[in-house]
Amino acid sequence: MKLCEFLECEKGMLFVVSGPSGTGKGTICKKVIENIGADISVSMTTRKPRDGEIDGKDYFFVTEEEFVQTIKDKGFLEHANVFGNRYGTPKANILEKLNSGKDVILEIDVQGAVQIKETFPEAVLIFALPPTMKELRRRIIKRGTETKQKINERLAKSIDEVKFINRYDYAVINANLEIAVSEVESILIAEHLRLKSDINKIITKYEEEC
Amino acid sequence: MKLCEFLECEKGMLFVVSGPSGTGKGTICKKVIENIGADISVSMTTRKPRDGEIDGKDYFFVTEEEFVQTIKDKGFLEHANVFGNRYGTPKANILEKLNSGKDVILEIDVQGAVQIKETFPEAVLIFALPPTMKELRRRIIKRGTETKQKINERLAKSIDEVKFINRYDYAVINANLEIAVSEVESILIAEHLRLKSDINKIITKYEEEC
Repeated sequence: MKLCEFLECEKGMLFVVSGPSGTGKGTICKKVIENIGADISVSMTTRKPRDGEIDGKDYFFVTEEEFVQTIKDKGFLEHANVFGNRYGTPKANILEKLNSGKDVILEIDVQGAVQIKETFPEAVLIFALPPTMKELRRRIIKRGTETKQKINERLAKSIDEVKFINRYDYAVINANLEIAVSEVESILIAEHLRLKSDINKIITKYEEEC
Repeated sequence: MKLCEFLECEKGMLFVVSGPSGTGKGTICKKVIENIGADISVSMTTRKPRDGEIDGKDYFFVTEEEFVQTIKDKGFLEHANVFGNRYGTPKANILEKLNSGKDVILEIDVQGAVQIKETFPEAVLIFALPPTMKELRRRIIKRGTETKQKINERLAKSIDEVKFINRYDYAVINANLEIAVSEVESILIAEHLRLKSDINKIITKYEEEC
């Protein structure tokens, strides 16, 4: 039983999953959300859709002008520029979900995750790692959407991203998708059992019953 | 994959489960150990065995003199006096198990847990709670080994024990045994994924591979 249920509070928790592209963080998030019914937030981006990506489901695909207007309206929880494309996390519907007691899982890059942690220190940051750099290269090549130069850029960038790991709470090694998914689920369950500011409420609850 | 496996270190982790008597912490520990193959430590006590309890399995049942000698030999990780009986956790075989890479789960009282956390700050403390005080009373009465006065003493003591919860990392409400067991298992998995002092090793590992 989640401590917040036991204490009859209604707040959901915010989880952020990041990691170099090719670590499978997107797939991990989708599976976790399917399995435990958390909510994912759809990000906004100025990059072009890849094959099969659906507007409003994978991303909100917007123009540069629309993106800049949302920044001006303070509509983002975080936003960043990655490889020349802009990505942002719309604020309003996340706060609404958390306030209604739903957990939210965000899949965002390291810059965004650090911004979130500054605004929401109670957010839990999970870093998805590839088992090896060699495996990461293999996965990026397999995706087949990148030129050789882009692949090398991405691998160099991966190392820079891993250096942000000291800002994260957990690391999950995606050597086996099923295990990585169940590990993220364990983190979600455990975080709901962690003792934080709710300690005094627990003592009061038992004293009143006695 | 546990971070310690990924980083090829060999240290097990120490988990401590406490809670008022009647919360089912003993059963939770046994089930977790069965399911995930952690190691339990057998405590030493001066109290008399209950029906069905086996010396060397449930406890090492010793005399007052033997217990005092072990204290003098600095053979305990912690020891305490609970309801006039002494309980202690033998040190040597726990350190041996941890050094061989095995996790150890200790079921000990709040006084002992606090001593452990002081000696081993990296120990993870889990507090098992009954769903309500009424349910706790029902469970203690059901056990049938206590007089009415002893039951009331235990319930009063429970409140004092719950006040130690601020020294603990997690709380598990034992309303349903199966769920409580899987929650403790999630805590064990998550703690093996928490980023601690191993952060720089992760960065170095990827840089070397790149």
